[in-house]
Amino acid sequence: MTTGHVFIATSVDGFVARKDHTLDWLAKKPGVEGEDGGFANFMDSVDGLIMGSGSFRTLLGFEQWVYTKPVIVLSSSLTGADIPKHLQTKVRLSRSSPKALMQELDQEGWKRAYVDGGKIVQSFLREGLISDLTITSVPILIGEGIPLFGTVEADIDLELMHSRQLATSMIQTTYRVV
Amino acid sequence: MTTGHVFIATSVDGFVARKDHTLDWLAKKPGVEGEDGGFANFMDSVDGLIMGSGSFRTLLGFEQWVYTKPVIVLSSSLTGADIPKHLQTKVRLSRSSPKALMQELDQEGWKRAYVDGGKIVQSFLREGLISDLTITSVPILIGEGIPLFGTVEADIDLELMHSRQLATSMIQTTYRVV
Repeated sequence: MTTGHVFIATSVDGFVARKDHTLDWLAKKPGVEGEDGGFANFMDSVDGLIMGSGSFRTLLGFEQWVYTKPVIVLSSSLTGADIPKHLQTKVRLSRSSPKALMQELDQEGWKRAYVDGGKIVQSFLREGLISDLTITSVPILIGEGIPLFGTVEADIDLELMHSRQLATSMIQTTYRVV
Repeated sequence: MTTGHVFIATSVDGFVARKDHTLDWLAKKPGVEGEDGGFANFMDSVDGLIMGSGSFRTLLGFEQWVYTKPVIVLSSSLTGADIPKHLQTKVRLSRSSPKALMQELDQEGWKRAYVDGGKIVQSFLREGLISDLTITSVPILIGEGIPLFGTVEADIDLELMHSRQLATSMIQTTYRVV
């Protein structure tokens, strides 16, 4: 089946966005030219993205659509009318369960899916659909927001694959789900 | 004034203990002989410890009392009768506010206090009484428990001091509170 892979930035207190999905706290941290934290390589490795409506709305707020690979938005509330015209070949809505979606994508030939956004990562983790997570920890505490992790039915053991300090003073760690 | 320093292990999802204060998830991870993660050096650097009643009760459950330095338990519910006889020279109760306590300790000559336990760390952070945090991230997701961090009045900026991979496959990162 298609495997799920997470590549995400969190505050040190574990949030991927503020409650209103904004990322201003991340933008506060200075970037370093030529340092993308391995994001381009990661993007090259996946067949497309899976995200929720919250992440999708955040992306729509950016000046440009940032992804060249296909994006699947898992949502029970959005309809085709919510997808701007210029994105209709790039973005697809789905109401499938995480497992059913991964099976559909497998049949379409996807090997690896980039699973993005707090709630979606949590539901895919709970269903055992995530193979690994690369978490880039941003040196700030924001106190509240959308957490990367949520409750789990039983402990999930992780295996540390590697960890490195980026030029941006962020710590990037990759864990394999055991 | 006395400065506060945190040295603590958390699950990757940010918990310092399960809801009932147990640390079985931490004990599941194999130790490595001779690797204390810099704990002895850190202990040498502080004049004593400040913790809450939850951490104190957890410590009382261990076979031996592990600390040689003085321990202050911040609690509005415990009384002298809750301190076992053999610890009465080692453990002191206080009902002071975090700031008042740090002022008292300063007058007693404490330069550095080890501030321990989720709730206590959160209240000292909110009062601006923590200088740095060394967080050892344990590769497991436990889903719920006592979080290291809580709400804050405003973003707290951190500065990455150093990060390293321990022989135990844990990632230990030290942040200075800016």
